[in-house]
Amino acid sequence: MAKALVLERPRELTLRDIDLQMSMGPQDVRIRMDVVGICGSDVHYYRHGRIGPFVVTEPMVLGHEGAGTVLECGADVSHLRPGDRVCIEPGIPDFSSDASRIGLYNLDPSLTFWATPPVHGCLTPEVTHPAALVYRLPDGVSQAEGAMVEPLAVGMQAVSKARVMAGDVAVVMGAGPIGILTALCALAAGCVRVLIFDPSAQKVKTATQYPGIEALAAHPEGLPAQVMTQTGNRGADLVFECSGAAAAFAGVAGLLRPGGTLVCIGMPVTPVAMDIVALIVKEIHIVTAFRYANVYDRAIALLASGKIDVKPLISASYPFTQSIDAFERADQARPDDVKLQIFF
Amino acid sequence: MAKALVLERPRELTLRDIDLQMSMGPQDVRIRMDVVGICGSDVHYYRHGRIGPFVVTEPMVLGHEGAGTVLECGADVSHLRPGDRVCIEPGIPDFSSDASRIGLYNLDPSLTFWATPPVHGCLTPEVTHPAALVYRLPDGVSQAEGAMVEPLAVGMQAVSKARVMAGDVAVVMGAGPIGILTALCALAAGCVRVLIFDPSAQKVKTATQYPGIEALAAHPEGLPAQVMTQTGNRGADLVFECSGAAAAFAGVAGLLRPGGTLVCIGMPVTPVAMDIVALIVKEIHIVTAFRYANVYDRAIALLASGKIDVKPLISASYPFTQSIDAFERADQARPDDVKLQIFF
Amino acid sequence: MAKALVLERPRELTLRDIDLQMSMGPQDVRIRMDVVGICGSDVHYYRHGRIGPFVVTEPMVLGHEGAGTVLECGADVSHLRPGDRVCIEPGIPDFSSDASRIGLYNLDPSLTFWATPPVHGCLTPEVTHPAALVYRLPDGVSQAEGAMVEPLAVGMQAVSKARVMAGDVAVVMGAGPIGILTALCALAAGCVRVLIFDPSAQKVKTATQYPGIEALAAHPEGLPAQVMTQTGNRGADLVFECSGAAAAFAGVAGLLRPGGTLVCIGMPVTPVAMDIVALIVKEIHIVTAFRYANVYDRAIALLASGKIDVKPLISASYPFTQSIDAFERADQARPDDVKLQIFF
Amino acid sequence: MAKALVLERPRELTLRDIDLQMSMGPQDVRIRMDVVGICGSDVHYYRHGRIGPFVVTEPMVLGHEGAGTVLECGADVSHLRPGDRVCIEPGIPDFSSDASRIGLYNLDPSLTFWATPPVHGCLTPEVTHPAALVYRLPDGVSQAEGAMVEPLAVGMQAVSKARVMAGDVAVVMGAGPIGILTALCALAAGCVRVLIFDPSAQKVKTATQYPGIEALAAHPEGLPAQVMTQTGNRGADLVFECSGAAAAFAGVAGLLRPGGTLVCIGMPVTPVAMDIVALIVKEIHIVTAFRYANVYDRAIALLASGKIDVKPLISASYPFTQSIDAFERADQARPDDVKLQIFF
Repeated sequence: MAKALVLERPRELTLRDIDLQMSMGPQDVRIRMDVVGICGSDVHYYRHGRIGPFVVTEPMVLGHEGAGTVLECGADVSHLRPGDRVCIEPGIPDFSSDASRIGLYNLDPSLTFWATPPVHGCLTPEVTHPAALVYRLPDGVSQAEGAMVEPLAVGMQAVSKARVMAGDVAVVMGAGPIGILTALCALAAGCVRVLIFDPSAQKVKTATQYPGIEALAAHPEGLPAQVMTQTGNRGADLVFECSGAAAAFAGVAGLLRPGGTLVCIGMPVTPVAMDIVALIVKEIHIVTAFRYANVYDRAIALLASGKIDVKPLISASYPFTQSIDAFERADQARPDDVKLQIFF
Repeated sequence: MAKALVLERPRELTLRDIDLQMSMGPQDVRIRMDVVGICGSDVHYYRHGRIGPFVVTEPMVLGHEGAGTVLECGADVSHLRPGDRVCIEPGIPDFSSDASRIGLYNLDPSLTFWATPPVHGCLTPEVTHPAALVYRLPDGVSQAEGAMVEPLAVGMQAVSKARVMAGDVAVVMGAGPIGILTALCALAAGCVRVLIFDPSAQKVKTATQYPGIEALAAHPEGLPAQVMTQTGNRGADLVFECSGAAAAFAGVAGLLRPGGTLVCIGMPVTPVAMDIVALIVKEIHIVTAFRYANVYDRAIALLASGKIDVKPLISASYPFTQSIDAFERADQARPDDVKLQIFF
Repeated sequence: MAKALVLERPRELTLRDIDLQMSMGPQDVRIRMDVVGICGSDVHYYRHGRIGPFVVTEPMVLGHEGAGTVLECGADVSHLRPGDRVCIEPGIPDFSSDASRIGLYNLDPSLTFWATPPVHGCLTPEVTHPAALVYRLPDGVSQAEGAMVEPLAVGMQAVSKARVMAGDVAVVMGAGPIGILTALCALAAGCVRVLIFDPSAQKVKTATQYPGIEALAAHPEGLPAQVMTQTGNRGADLVFECSGAAAAFAGVAGLLRPGGTLVCIGMPVTPVAMDIVALIVKEIHIVTAFRYANVYDRAIALLASGKIDVKPLISASYPFTQSIDAFERADQARPDDVKLQIFF
Repeated sequence: MAKALVLERPRELTLRDIDLQMSMGPQDVRIRMDVVGICGSDVHYYRHGRIGPFVVTEPMVLGHEGAGTVLECGADVSHLRPGDRVCIEPGIPDFSSDASRIGLYNLDPSLTFWATPPVHGCLTPEVTHPAALVYRLPDGVSQAEGAMVEPLAVGMQAVSKARVMAGDVAVVMGAGPIGILTALCALAAGCVRVLIFDPSAQKVKTATQYPGIEALAAHPEGLPAQVMTQTGNRGADLVFECSGAAAAFAGVAGLLRPGGTLVCIGMPVTPVAMDIVALIVKEIHIVTAFRYANVYDRAIALLASGKIDVKPLISASYPFTQSIDAFERADQARPDDVKLQIFF
């Protein structure tokens, strides 16, 4: 039995003991959690008890953005030692599956993922996890930053799939945490400028604190004209769609140069209308990015090198004992909050 | 003044003299036309006088699928000689434009294209054209086959963009000329099997005459289940969307394996609904193919090698003097007609 | 204890009982061997007792090109059943290693490989193997063909790395088994022509039995001129170097078009001289292919589809009891022998 | 007749009038030269009168790293105006050639290049050039920086061909101007660290002034061990070979991770020995980069964004009237000189 933040049912959280039935194999590590970030999906489960086909039918521990300290290593673990500060990749695939073998382990249908029903998350003081998915944090990267690696990895996956080239100009649709982190990844990957759009002026303001990120002020329907103006009538090389808003898809071809790339990260709740002809006549590539694979080490290296600074995005931290308060604040969706974290 | 098949206005064709103001520069060749195929777009202009934003406001010569014989070469032309049998790439780009310089000359906004208003086509006994876009036909490839290179190049562009790998399984949506030619290109590019869908049983029958092409008999909504069955529950590696039908887009993610590719060639007349979430969770790539660039020589080589045989797709040939009859037959859209050609 | 073909020391083979200490886990299958091909590396160990750093210090069972029949499946195996005819991928990686996770499991440093010291091979009536590396053979593919999948996979790896495009022209250096199989894979992957070179006229003759494969008759130093002549002064798109001969590397840039690709499969025994400037001024890509990963299913599909026919390459078959005779014949290296096999 | 810096024969430069026979077509611009950098190849022609097959047989104007101001635009030029500050891409291809059409115009065999015999360079007060190869400099980029775009483009070409991914670790061999500029491009393209090697401690010191560039102190034979140590035994993702030294090629596979990439930029004067087996067993990709194509605009954007700062690399500037002094200093090859420039 362990204390954990348990989602009992929609809008009902308790901090209570629960039996997590932790097992520890020779390739696993046991970790003391230090910091866990609150993700939009955690809040969505809190509010609605489900995300699409994933329904919370039993009490479930929330949290999947975690950093901690290694307590114990299984017999076959060689790259970690007790005391190592680490962050944790929350999805566990079968590495020998068809998808994993071609480098796409994030797409393995048998993958389990923290805080996705029926799997418990990491808002509990101790977890076990396969060592292959646990990454040592270097000296200059704090536990709070380590807990940001998970959402940062989403942005890294997007720029990896997009094959950014040095000198590219990107548009990012949506200035929530994923939008901002994707923008930072795009800059780190060689973009010279990122133009960001969000209906919330506050969110755009948060994003444009970073050098290299510029605001797009227009309404969605004015975006093509504005992007053309801001790119010398050339169009963007890349659009990262992080909003999931149907309006973002309607005129997206008009933002891009011939041969440009649209990267889909945001998940629209219903099918969206796309102008296929407009995409075809510019031979736009569309790539989609789901969670992440093989980017945690890259994300950590970018934090360590100082190329990406996520510290300004951590809006507030709550002790584990006040986890419920943290979720209530997250539920308010204050436009100036980017990331709330819980520490142990 | 030259005799030509002129579209005077919707549904009115005349075979008459027209001033085509041919000019001949040092990098051009003059060509006697031998065979011209009738494309769906020619028929569309005949019926409606427009395709989207392209409106026929002045009488316009039709035809852009042409093969002929070189009559005269400009002073700077070295790779062709009078008497050479050739086929002709009908779009003329500025090869120094931004798009052309990165290998995408088909996307140059200044490109002009035969029989796309206000540019005249090639249904006339003689044309001039930049030699860089004129390709010699080898001995085993006839003029009739040469006039098939243009639509074949559309299929080649699709498979080039798709980056087919040997051993792939593809689905082709639509069994019109472009669907069948794309299927043949997919097989030539290494696909082991092509599963083809079309509401017309006759068209599917025409396609499945070719070894390697198999019929998908289901209604569109049953396709995912059927494709899964026929691929051992694996999903297709590639879907080539050649129908432009909105229904083809709805469930397309369900046809594909994780990491698979959708290639858009067909042009839906209005925006279509796409299930972005279904595409994201499989990290589907979507590539779009517009006309062609750098594939004519490859298409000709595939014909010459016998890897692709387009002869069974030439349904009937009309002399130039009966061009109007040919268009009237094309207008009937008989399901057993694949390609009609006009010879001089 | 099981009967096996054991390499006791260089040039000493015995067919005798040996303790192979087979273990069978829940993800393993037990297989009755039906056919095993003899590879050049088997013969090399027979002759020299070593290949580079790999030295046979203890008696070792030879053979790694195997097809068989499933006898028993571990508890977690779902894609195979007893009675299934299968072929077997002989290298066992850690699928969670750094290399495996990015799709390159063939490069995992911890990989073990049949008949590579100190690991025993499959020239024994029964083996166990991870089910993830065992592939069902479809109806039209025989056990003898199944035992050809291993060397065919080497060719598939080469064409996969090369990213062949439909319409390419390739040169293959070396007409041994790997050269011929690579040529067949190149044709299956869309090459319209393969020009093959080998100092042995007999080997070239064997290769050119296949339509699409043409002989290069010149001495190595005459190859650039000959390739240019045979490609209309254009150069090949691809060179597959399967000979490992130093001479093949000297002038290789002269065979290729600007932007062409050199694929290295053959392993020269010592460093070879390369003209870097000649490669740079054409921006030649060089890709290297080591064994294979993720291509067995593709190779099997190509056999099943009839796109590749390996049957003419099986020169002779020996019963297991005459394995030593088979190796003695292989040791003679008759130029008209391509592949010798042993059946059980 | 125009004043120009003329190489009369090896080691003999004069600043004199010469007839440059400038012609000005409708797609050309006339430019007043403002700054011209001295390249190693200029110095090489000065010393030896030849580079490989390119022999100076007639007096030739030197210089190809140029920035200037537009004086006059041809009738068809729309993207430039008199008064625009510009830099100039010195190689003029036929944009409709086979190589150009696939995006590799730098490989067009008919390309002419400033200061490569028999073509004159730009060390003269006025030149004409195709407008398609003339790029406007934005406000924050000076003429001196503009004259650095040419060598910077060499580094950009290298990182473009290498397809750098964010988070990569690179090794650069050689800390001359191209080595340092390539290192800066690698960092701009997403590398988190660049480890640089040069036998000259002074050159390494110049390079490591930049954050992100670290010194490799070892002798060439100790490099693999040192790189493994500095990368946590992982190996580098990329090696950029900018030295052209044979020793750099010998053990290069030992610096790289499985699946890593070697980029060849430096040009060894004779063929170099390469250990093909060592490259194959790691499936190393080798890409080669020759001059540049389609990267000038990207290089300028990186300068404008502040992502790359070349100003510390401009060691000294000489007035045009003292051009010969500038070449004499360049000929001394002082280890603390990176780039010498001449201004008008």
